[in-house]
Amino acid sequence: MAEALTPERILEATEDVLRRYGPGKATVVDVARALGVSHGSVYRHFRTKAALRAAVTQRWLDRTSEQLKSVVSGTGPAGQQLDRWLTTLFEAKRHKAGDDPELFATYTVLASEASGVVERHIEDSVGQLAQIIEAGRDEGEFAADAIGSAYEAARAVFHATARFHDPVYAAEWSRPGVEDDFLSVRSLVLRGLRR
Amino acid sequence: MAEALTPERILEATEDVLRRYGPGKATVVDVARALGVSHGSVYRHFRTKAALRAAVTQRWLDRTSEQLKSVVSGTGPAGQQLDRWLTTLFEAKRHKAGDDPELFATYTVLASEASGVVERHIEDSVGQLAQIIEAGRDEGEFAADAIGSAYEAARAVFHATARFHDPVYAAEWSRPGVEDDFLSVRSLVLRGLRR
Repeated sequence: MAEALTPERILEATEDVLRRYGPGKATVVDVARALGVSHGSVYRHFRTKAALRAAVTQRWLDRTSEQLKSVVSGTGPAGQQLDRWLTTLFEAKRHKAGDDPELFATYTVLASEASGVVERHIEDSVGQLAQIIEAGRDEGEFAADAIGSAYEAARAVFHATARFHDPVYAAEWSRPGVEDDFLSVRSLVLRGLRR
Repeated sequence: MAEALTPERILEATEDVLRRYGPGKATVVDVARALGVSHGSVYRHFRTKAALRAAVTQRWLDRTSEQLKSVVSGTGPAGQQLDRWLTTLFEAKRHKAGDDPELFATYTVLASEASGVVERHIEDSVGQLAQIIEAGRDEGEFAADAIGSAYEAARAVFHATARFHDPVYAAEWSRPGVEDDFLSVRSLVLRGLRR
């Protein structure tokens, strides 16, 4: 009996097809062929090509979000959590960009088409940061009166560290000295949050 | 008698020509024609087309550096100077991008060709920041032991504020809320430097 056609299987196949043909050429028919099903079967799960591409982009971004979530749910002082969160984000992005540059470039194209998905991902990331900052304020480790609400402070931290997570800077992540630059910005930001 | 052909006149004419034809089409012959001279006369001042384009890029970047230099040589506590420096930089970039978007796009293309010129401009900017930070440390307003040397701290400040001066973010500078985002990052950075 054939394996059931789940959304997850379709998304996996889509990533393979995108890797093989590139974002410009990959079609829903290619995905269906790779799965040995009709393109109608794919469209039953994803109603348009754009929806399929947005879903595969979301899945790619979710992998990073999951790693970050485990930092937020971990224990330890807020300052340590923030350090770990920023480091995890930078490392995850660096790996994505460095381990498979072609796939990374492909997803950069997809992300530019699915701005809603990217915006939700950013909001989710800022929300995680806000949780850490809120906890640090409650514990008295971070200043409660600085830089507005925990959400505003979280946006500021996210923006201040953009060089180490925004894909526009991917070319910088393999340069010598980037680790030191990251540690300097991370210290600056953490000092800025402390009482 | 004809006006003397100075480098400055050539650079002015080059900017005009670039504005008119775009960076893809503008030639040295166009510049010479605009000045009513032979292209040989232009080449006597700038030996190659690349050298001319690099010089006009430098002139464009220097306009911002000059504005910033006057902040560094001004008086007042280092914290205030830093605020003013970052605000001046953001405002200068926003104006360049917003007042004449076509010329800004042209210079973005030119800057990508003249990476040496851009790197020197960035080093110059970081050097100005380091001067402010050094002074703030001497006066005891900034922590002397945080984030390494004044130069390292300056790099961190420059990187942390990239969203508000790096041309890759130019599209963000006209969005509602960008002012608040800037003020949040500026506060975060300043807090990070203080004792």
